[in-house]
Amino acid sequence: MRKSISVLLLAAAALPAVADEGMWTFDNFPSAKVKEQYGATIDAAWLDRVRRSTIRLANCTASFVSPDGLILTNHHCVRSCLAELSTRETSLEENGFVARQRGDERRCETQMADVLQSMEDITDKVARAVAGLDAGAANEARKKTLTQLESDCERDTKLKCQSVTLYQGGQYFLYRYKRYSDVRLVLAPEADIAAFGGDPDNFQFPRWSLDYSMLRAYEDGKPVKTANYLPIRFEGPQAGEFVLVPGHPGSTSRLDTRAELEFARDIVMPNWLLRYSELRGRYIQFGKTGESAARIVEEPLSSIENGIKVRRKLLDTLHENALLEAKSEAEHDLRAKVAGDAAFGDPWADIAGAVGIQRNIYLPYAFLEGAAGFNSAAFRYARTLVRAAAERPKENTARLREYTDTALPRLERQTLAAVPVYPELENLTLSWSLERMREWLGPDHPVVKQLLAADSPDTLAAKLISGTKLSDPAERKRLWDGGQAAIDASDDPMIKLAHAVDQPSRAVRKQYEDEVEAPISTASEKIAAARFKAYGTNVYPDATFTLRLNYGTVAGWKERGEDVAPFTYLKRAFERATGEPPFRIPASWEQVRGTLDMDTPFCLSTTSDIVGGNSGSALVDAQGRIVGLLFDGNIHSISGNYWFDTAKNRAVAVHPAIIRESLQKVYRADAILKELGVR
Amino acid sequence: MRKSISVLLLAAAALPAVADEGMWTFDNFPSAKVKEQYGATIDAAWLDRVRRSTIRLANCTASFVSPDGLILTNHHCVRSCLAELSTRETSLEENGFVARQRGDERRCETQMADVLQSMEDITDKVARAVAGLDAGAANEARKKTLTQLESDCERDTKLKCQSVTLYQGGQYFLYRYKRYSDVRLVLAPEADIAAFGGDPDNFQFPRWSLDYSMLRAYEDGKPVKTANYLPIRFEGPQAGEFVLVPGHPGSTSRLDTRAELEFARDIVMPNWLLRYSELRGRYIQFGKTGESAARIVEEPLSSIENGIKVRRKLLDTLHENALLEAKSEAEHDLRAKVAGDAAFGDPWADIAGAVGIQRNIYLPYAFLEGAAGFNSAAFRYARTLVRAAAERPKENTARLREYTDTALPRLERQTLAAVPVYPELENLTLSWSLERMREWLGPDHPVVKQLLAADSPDTLAAKLISGTKLSDPAERKRLWDGGQAAIDASDDPMIKLAHAVDQPSRAVRKQYEDEVEAPISTASEKIAAARFKAYGTNVYPDATFTLRLNYGTVAGWKERGEDVAPFTYLKRAFERATGEPPFRIPASWEQVRGTLDMDTPFCLSTTSDIVGGNSGSALVDAQGRIVGLLFDGNIHSISGNYWFDTAKNRAVAVHPAIIRESLQKVYRADAILKELGVR
Repeated sequence: MRKSISVLLLAAAALPAVADEGMWTFDNFPSAKVKEQYGATIDAAWLDRVRRSTIRLANCTASFVSPDGLILTNHHCVRSCLAELSTRETSLEENGFVARQRGDERRCETQMADVLQSMEDITDKVARAVAGLDAGAANEARKKTLTQLESDCERDTKLKCQSVTLYQGGQYFLYRYKRYSDVRLVLAPEADIAAFGGDPDNFQFPRWSLDYSMLRAYEDGKPVKTANYLPIRFEGPQAGEFVLVPGHPGSTSRLDTRAELEFARDIVMPNWLLRYSELRGRYIQFGKTGESAARIVEEPLSSIENGIKVRRKLLDTLHENALLEAKSEAEHDLRAKVAGDAAFGDPWADIAGAVGIQRNIYLPYAFLEGAAGFNSAAFRYARTLVRAAAERPKENTARLREYTDTALPRLERQTLAAVPVYPELENLTLSWSLERMREWLGPDHPVVKQLLAADSPDTLAAKLISGTKLSDPAERKRLWDGGQAAIDASDDPMIKLAHAVDQPSRAVRKQYEDEVEAPISTASEKIAAARFKAYGTNVYPDATFTLRLNYGTVAGWKERGEDVAPFTYLKRAFERATGEPPFRIPASWEQVRGTLDMDTPFCLSTTSDIVGGNSGSALVDAQGRIVGLLFDGNIHSISGNYWFDTAKNRAVAVHPAIIRESLQKVYRADAILKELGVR
Repeated sequence: MRKSISVLLLAAAALPAVADEGMWTFDNFPSAKVKEQYGATIDAAWLDRVRRSTIRLANCTASFVSPDGLILTNHHCVRSCLAELSTRETSLEENGFVARQRGDERRCETQMADVLQSMEDITDKVARAVAGLDAGAANEARKKTLTQLESDCERDTKLKCQSVTLYQGGQYFLYRYKRYSDVRLVLAPEADIAAFGGDPDNFQFPRWSLDYSMLRAYEDGKPVKTANYLPIRFEGPQAGEFVLVPGHPGSTSRLDTRAELEFARDIVMPNWLLRYSELRGRYIQFGKTGESAARIVEEPLSSIENGIKVRRKLLDTLHENALLEAKSEAEHDLRAKVAGDAAFGDPWADIAGAVGIQRNIYLPYAFLEGAAGFNSAAFRYARTLVRAAAERPKENTARLREYTDTALPRLERQTLAAVPVYPELENLTLSWSLERMREWLGPDHPVVKQLLAADSPDTLAAKLISGTKLSDPAERKRLWDGGQAAIDASDDPMIKLAHAVDQPSRAVRKQYEDEVEAPISTASEKIAAARFKAYGTNVYPDATFTLRLNYGTVAGWKERGEDVAPFTYLKRAFERATGEPPFRIPASWEQVRGTLDMDTPFCLSTTSDIVGGNSGSALVDAQGRIVGLLFDGNIHSISGNYWFDTAKNRAVAVHPAIIRESLQKVYRADAILKELGVR
């Protein structure tokens, strides 16, 4: 097994970059290298067209696939929309959804689609703003500057502008997006086939999950006209074919220091895994209390099961001594290169010191400011309403970053959207999180003591959930519009709770920002500068949920000495079905079983370097045609958060042939087929 | 903070042993050192009397405290007995229990009390049996020899004989016990006060848990006469006073190699914690479905919450780089001392190699042979019945070790005891464990595939639990007595399941024994021999749930710079009560609140080196009088599995004054008070 992390490779100097590794920004894509290695021409026009066809959703990627704003993404990327459009009686996840005509397409209340229009390097502007300041003041000034630049940009361009930190502070950019706020559901298969194999098969390959769905972007009540879109090559790619993935990888930690990795290993991962494994158990047991319970718990359960699997494998990776040793070695090498520069200081030691503080404040930070102690939709609404009332009157650059003018529209939309809130689920998550807060902070922590002086977590949660009116969007709108006066006058118990814990939460956040974030930012900028100096810019930055492009080939791998082939076929899905979830083929498929071509390719694997956030990305060929729909990686891909395992890290995509087969024979979506150019 | 592990200290040669560290066998207690350091005389007569007064329960320690066989132990040590004597309508844990007269004392069906009579060193006998054999053959021969020696001993002495491996194979002993098979419940406070503070306060100090209970040993239907017993000094010890703890520490890993610790850190702890955190969630949620559900889930829930807390802290300890570095250093030092002895080889590398195999087979071993995939009482009965039928006809030394003549009486007792089995709980744990087996082994593992070909974990569990008759003790007796013929004729689905998974389970066990256990045993014996050679026998062995004696003083410690005092008092328990579990004072106490002396000492902390298994141990003074009842350690004590933290590791005991106060004023147990010599 061969592993690498780019800093290491670069530290080792003249080694070539490992094939297929890299999450490249569109302004720094290694076209020449790709031309040389694969003979493919990825020129400016190609990059522009693909960039303008690629969409960033709330937590996924998607693509325009027709001139009428039709969007292709994963089924799991619209699960929250499906849940929002469901009730306790009817589940769109369970039943699937097909809009037979455009009028039937249903709006996803909390979804938006952003398309990147342009990028501006603002590194110098940020550097000027922080020049000569100590870490704490620099941290403040940096944030204010970014807020100001975003705000100026939005005023000038009417686009959505977002600052982006690349290379841990080595570069700052302003990314400008065209935003589509009206996104509607067009088609989603039943969860039984879209997530066939469920949690057991998640992050596994071979795989048979029909993880696609379709949306459509609207403007002024009409489908948008999209000059740029990606056509689908339904026959799919050949084994070994060169392929690319434009998308928004969410986050990676490949440039983190050893101290930061050890913090994740010792504190963050175990804490999260323990808490969410328990929540998983609570959800599952709750789901057994009835059909409606099973229905409303399905989406949140599937979401945390995914999170558990990811973190389990991340923890495994952090336990590989080779990773930490390689990290130390890379730090040692870079340190040697900057030796003699007294002004450089020791940023690794600075980060280790800050991480030491972070270890001490992690629990109060997570439970109070991170709201891990108050896990309920009503509390999230309450906190947003309480804080928005306090922040909005302030000057834009003086606000908490999530309440700046740039951030407010999405926040308001999310806060006021009419989505179902289930009190029994609210009770479950709130009592669980209060109980765990008491466990981890201890019964004698001031906040715990105050809240639970005469209550158990269960009795307190019951009072709060039965007393709050925040599940009503109208009440939220009243409080949002009413500002501080409305908040002060409210006797909603959840508003009162959010208010009561606001000061201790802000206090630990302030400590975190001053004593952890600030020194880490300053030290990371120094390391990034040293890295640029030592290795040039022929490196890619860690993922930041901003647009990237990677390349690779269609390929399987060797698992314990056995070849894993890169394609799966429909036939095996039927063979593998047990009749019970998550291995149940839906009735819609069983009914037409005789008409299906059992040799239809179902999923495929590629060497593409992807992580969460790439979900829904198009897998495109050298001509920019869709030859697959990325939805997952194999189990080894999870370690990609820390390094890239060339031998085993594989991306997993839905094959376009199974999408066509499903549209033609199962969902009989003739209008969509026509729109996609299928005769 | 000062930490040590004995191997390290010894590696560092002439350093004195750290004060208060050590779990000494009774034949190797450092009396001279104690005399010198504390002025206390712990002579042979003292050791004999205390040994004969100290009892080993199924998973705890206890002491005779009267000449009529009265036994003092922890409340949490009798929780399984309380659960067995409860029904879904009435819970002895909830209500407590007081036998007003001896006729009311209730037998604990699965409990036994063993008292150590003598110890024989059989190291030479074992060495002769394995001389010249390779690791695999030596492993077999060693087990056969131990079985044979146990069997000969029982035949000759009529005592229970158990072989004991000390110093990871540095010494082998035969321990001979007098066994009391009839143990009855005399008194138990309500769980609300016995476990006041519940899971949040578990492993915490200051503490207010009245964690005591009383049993009585019977023989031929009459209370046994016990010449040796420990009187109680109800006023308790002074701060700083010299105290000792005779007891049965369960297990420690202080002599494990680095490879073994990394295995625990990477595989064992995370896997267990994830699975049991989920089970915790399922139990809690299940408990909310009704009063009876809450009742029957209480004992198993509290048991796994304890396990979670222990392993959380163990994982934290394993993440301390200093521990692993110290371990490497100690290995390095010992290696240097034996350098030049070619015959010695490299036992550390041998162990690392075996652990590499163990990593690969851990999951199938745990889920199949460890039965983590079949978590239900009925399956445990089924496996025992299936295997007992197969093993009992074999020659004694040819059997699986848990089915030898020495082991059978306890096994039979446990299998046939009439204890309640709740089908709803069985369904819960079985479906959970089947689901997790599918998750961790994968849906395509042969056993998973076979069992779940047309079922989900839920539907399979439901069929098994509704179909099995093994919850009926009469049916178990029929199958136990009927042997192989009865098993073969049974169509009980759980028997069929146990039979179906028996071969794959035995296969992975065989692989474990040959490829993991055998080389580790041989290598560990070598390391132990080297250690004796280098450092002499002035060392204590790792805990093995056999009788040990340690010494220390009554003392608090410094926590984040603040002094923690070594005593707590009753008053604060009332102040800390919230009225809701686990901070609820029971009605029996509230009713007599006015009569209670609020300055009664409640709990105390000592520097005693204890771990799980020491629960229920007497804390005795230099005269061998009980001055406390060990029931817990502080949070730092958990790291004692790997090393002893002199500065912070503290044991926690119930103060005898609160026991007297409760007997006099709350439980009005006059007969018991009289028996204890209180006027």
